[in-house]
Amino acid sequence: MTAFLPFVMTASTPKATNIVWHEASVDRAARADKRGHRSAILWFTGLSGSGKSTLANAVNAALFERGLATYVLDGDNVRHGLCKDLGFSDADREENIRRIGEVAKLFLDAGVIVLTAFVSPFRADRDKARDLVEAGDFFEIFCAADLDVCESRDPKGLYAKARSGAIKEFTGISSPYEAPDTPELKIDTGAQELAQSVEVVIKALQDKGVIPAA
Amino acid sequence: MTAFLPFVMTASTPKATNIVWHEASVDRAARADKRGHRSAILWFTGLSGSGKSTLANAVNAALFERGLATYVLDGDNVRHGLCKDLGFSDADREENIRRIGEVAKLFLDAGVIVLTAFVSPFRADRDKARDLVEAGDFFEIFCAADLDVCESRDPKGLYAKARSGAIKEFTGISSPYEAPDTPELKIDTGAQELAQSVEVVIKALQDKGVIPAA
Repeated sequence: MTAFLPFVMTASTPKATNIVWHEASVDRAARADKRGHRSAILWFTGLSGSGKSTLANAVNAALFERGLATYVLDGDNVRHGLCKDLGFSDADREENIRRIGEVAKLFLDAGVIVLTAFVSPFRADRDKARDLVEAGDFFEIFCAADLDVCESRDPKGLYAKARSGAIKEFTGISSPYEAPDTPELKIDTGAQELAQSVEVVIKALQDKGVIPAA
Repeated sequence: MTAFLPFVMTASTPKATNIVWHEASVDRAARADKRGHRSAILWFTGLSGSGKSTLANAVNAALFERGLATYVLDGDNVRHGLCKDLGFSDADREENIRRIGEVAKLFLDAGVIVLTAFVSPFRADRDKARDLVEAGDFFEIFCAADLDVCESRDPKGLYAKARSGAIKEFTGISSPYEAPDTPELKIDTGAQELAQSVEVVIKALQDKGVIPAA
């Protein structure tokens, strides 16, 4: 939680500056009270084509319909902006996930349910993001579609490029995906209907007291 | 604005994957409709001790009281997190402000009125942040307290350290502050009462149609 550190009035502070001690105490608890829901980080992870972004955006839309404060961070709004200086080396991938974790933490602090949709293939990087926040604020949601399903979808033609060698170190083909051992949710996004997957996520948020029952 | 790029159902997409074209169209306009206010970036700039953070937090609290979605980015929540890998070299200062601009843009897209409170001494860096978003979304608010007022406040003892040489390249002492030529607002945070400064900012947001009249 952000500690606001405003100017402190001391004996030596000239009164004429008109700066008084001002505790602008808009913290997460105050936001949750006002909005009627807690914030949380929903960290979607899985292979390219597993449906992370589709599920995250569908959950986002469902929560938005209920009037909740939500936001999706994904490649579209992060890779071309905040992380546009980063490539795909190991160090850059790690830094990419680090920044996403830190930005997610800011949204959490702002009272927003933030959904991140990135492959995030390495357990250590995901765990670092988890460790930035309190237990109970981080939901790792494993989109567990099988590789062959993801490859048959290949929505961006990336698997074809990886197979041909045009893309090096592609997760699932030439670079490992480390599946979560104990994710908060594991969803078979290869077989399960989208609407049903959305329901599973919403119910988990209700069960954990993040959002009110419908 | 974020373009969501969900999977597209094509003739070759196997139906069994159950991924249908899903336009999760929660954009800024939809958020503004639902919340009853637009989002904006309020970029507070000024010398250390000029009252940027105090004013930003006071405006934040006033907007929050009205039920608006708001958030403050400042040194406390950014320098120790997202930008903790950055020092105070010219390149690092520039990258610091670049990231803050990009994160502010994400909050803008999320429908949040985001208030940034950083010295941000260089015009070029502030202008880059401004150029990330549409005209009308960025309010540069110059906290124009005189140097001697800021130095007499010296809330963190930084001016004393700068004068003694313990801090090199301190803005206003040994490094320039480039005042905005045409800020959206210029506030004499050296003399004006805090409550009055808050009113000035709120009124500007009302006049520009960001927030409804009280």
